[in-house]
Amino acid sequence: MPQELRAVAWTGTGLALLDQTLLPHRAETVHVRDVDTLVDAIRRLVVRGAPAIGAAGGYGVALALLQGRREGWTDERTRAAVARIRAARPTAVNLMVCVDRVMTRFEEGPDAVLAEAAAVQREDVEANRAMGAHGADWLLKRIGEDRPLRILTHCNTGALATAGWGTALGVVRELHARGRLERVYADETRPLLQGSRLTAWELAQEGIPHSVQADGAAAGTILRGAVDAAVVGADRIAANGDTANKVGTVGVALACADAGIPFLVAAPTTTVDPGTATGDDIPIELRDEREVLEWAGVRTAPAGSRGHNPAFDVTPGRLVTGLVTERGVLEVAAGELPGERLR
Amino acid sequence: MPQELRAVAWTGTGLALLDQTLLPHRAETVHVRDVDTLVDAIRRLVVRGAPAIGAAGGYGVALALLQGRREGWTDERTRAAVARIRAARPTAVNLMVCVDRVMTRFEEGPDAVLAEAAAVQREDVEANRAMGAHGADWLLKRIGEDRPLRILTHCNTGALATAGWGTALGVVRELHARGRLERVYADETRPLLQGSRLTAWELAQEGIPHSVQADGAAAGTILRGAVDAAVVGADRIAANGDTANKVGTVGVALACADAGIPFLVAAPTTTVDPGTATGDDIPIELRDEREVLEWAGVRTAPAGSRGHNPAFDVTPGRLVTGLVTERGVLEVAAGELPGERLR
Repeated sequence: MPQELRAVAWTGTGLALLDQTLLPHRAETVHVRDVDTLVDAIRRLVVRGAPAIGAAGGYGVALALLQGRREGWTDERTRAAVARIRAARPTAVNLMVCVDRVMTRFEEGPDAVLAEAAAVQREDVEANRAMGAHGADWLLKRIGEDRPLRILTHCNTGALATAGWGTALGVVRELHARGRLERVYADETRPLLQGSRLTAWELAQEGIPHSVQADGAAAGTILRGAVDAAVVGADRIAANGDTANKVGTVGVALACADAGIPFLVAAPTTTVDPGTATGDDIPIELRDEREVLEWAGVRTAPAGSRGHNPAFDVTPGRLVTGLVTERGVLEVAAGELPGERLR
Repeated sequence: MPQELRAVAWTGTGLALLDQTLLPHRAETVHVRDVDTLVDAIRRLVVRGAPAIGAAGGYGVALALLQGRREGWTDERTRAAVARIRAARPTAVNLMVCVDRVMTRFEEGPDAVLAEAAAVQREDVEANRAMGAHGADWLLKRIGEDRPLRILTHCNTGALATAGWGTALGVVRELHARGRLERVYADETRPLLQGSRLTAWELAQEGIPHSVQADGAAAGTILRGAVDAAVVGADRIAANGDTANKVGTVGVALACADAGIPFLVAAPTTTVDPGTATGDDIPIELRDEREVLEWAGVRTAPAGSRGHNPAFDVTPGRLVTGLVTERGVLEVAAGELPGERLR
């Protein structure tokens, strides 16, 4: 992805967010200089993907500080604005972790806050690169070195979803860079088509062979032996390995378990929340039913129908063959629990 | 559904097909008087659902005979036209079974052929009513009589997909008629949205409470305990109980197995093909990739992306708790194989 198309970039006076609601047809940037606009951008998924939201949240602290100075806010009001950013979406823990980390330097003023936010972003890219290498190593060792791999992924976990490179898609990129990737099956990821619009766009940019499929096709594709492994991202991982990720993920995990192929979750250790014991404790965002009842603003379902629109689901840790972090791969289903191993 | 909105009706001179590509917004009828138009209507899903295609195919034999007389065809040419109807879609066995049955009266001329086609249609409605009763009896006995049930379904299996009433949706209707239905979760069923457009429309017409959800939400909805059973239809059932149905079905079955709730397939015995030993022998229709790469003719995926678009998947018989036919319920996963029990 060219530098100017980074999902999240600090411009010196504010945040430049690549508007992911318009891709792949238009690559437009939203310039954010106030807290309300940032909260709205996070809620509308202008910026999305747990690590990218985390990076945006980190810079959001600086944004709140600078806006507070411009508009003469009290510290209390600035902290309340930061709290609104921190709560803009409920499921991904990275947003909360990154905001909290940057807030430790709040008293030191904007320069220190900005330095910390930039460190968050830089470390995320480094973590992604490390995950890519660990995940590729593990897959090639586990599945064998004799032929290129066919990988299924769900939602978007690439450069657009992170500070750069990608989590699950970072593993895919690494396999491609090593010449060990045959094809990616990209679930389209309804209702908002992050797979069809964003993952396919990133893969197309890099010339990686890929097929977009309906989410319902994933299980059949896996069961008929067309896939060697699935690799997905995560929005929050509980201490026992239960993993919240984009709705549709647990169906992929069930199919992998039935087919006996690896199901990998790639996420930085900041996505593991030791304070969340199990998946039952992860709040699942319910989004507007219109996302599933309409298409591009045109109603597709009958007027009288209701919609059920959870943004995430929870994959039990027993189905997570491997959790790929920047520190290595934890074999969760085999008993390596993140709450114990990542303390 | 009002009488005039029947999916398939013989008008005296041709077939009236309710155009299911336009629902729920417009209820328009396509009048078919020639074989080419019928084959096109079946391929474009103007008429869809294995039993409804079967009924249309049965009348198609009469259509070919009448067109042949009008246009002076040889018997050979008429038989070739019938063969094209029979092969219009490859997966559902009902089309082939119904055409073959009606063809047994080909030599007797149009009146006999029409009488046989009408019998096919009439018997399908009777079979649906019987399935509804057997399925509801089984569910209430298995799950208990203490509270109304929450049922998940996939694709459309109602009056629109059959000669009338419905297969899986017939079971749902029967539960509703008995006051034992709380809510239906209707998977939207990408890429063509038969769930969101057609099932929701039928449920709305009858005032049955329902929630449309993305296909990816099904597994999570099941695993978190919001569903008591899933009931789906079938396009072809192999002798060992392996079941081809709309893509996305096997993911529902895997989730039901994991959650320990019943997964029922409702289909007339004509959907069981004793000549198909296992699911591996069922041809799976691959449809145009544009169905998954575009929306209403507008491209959603990047220009360079390919699409993988199987119309069906195969659920292994080991995951089919019950096969509901007009003769009763076979507990397939427990070893009651349709190839043995339905001889």
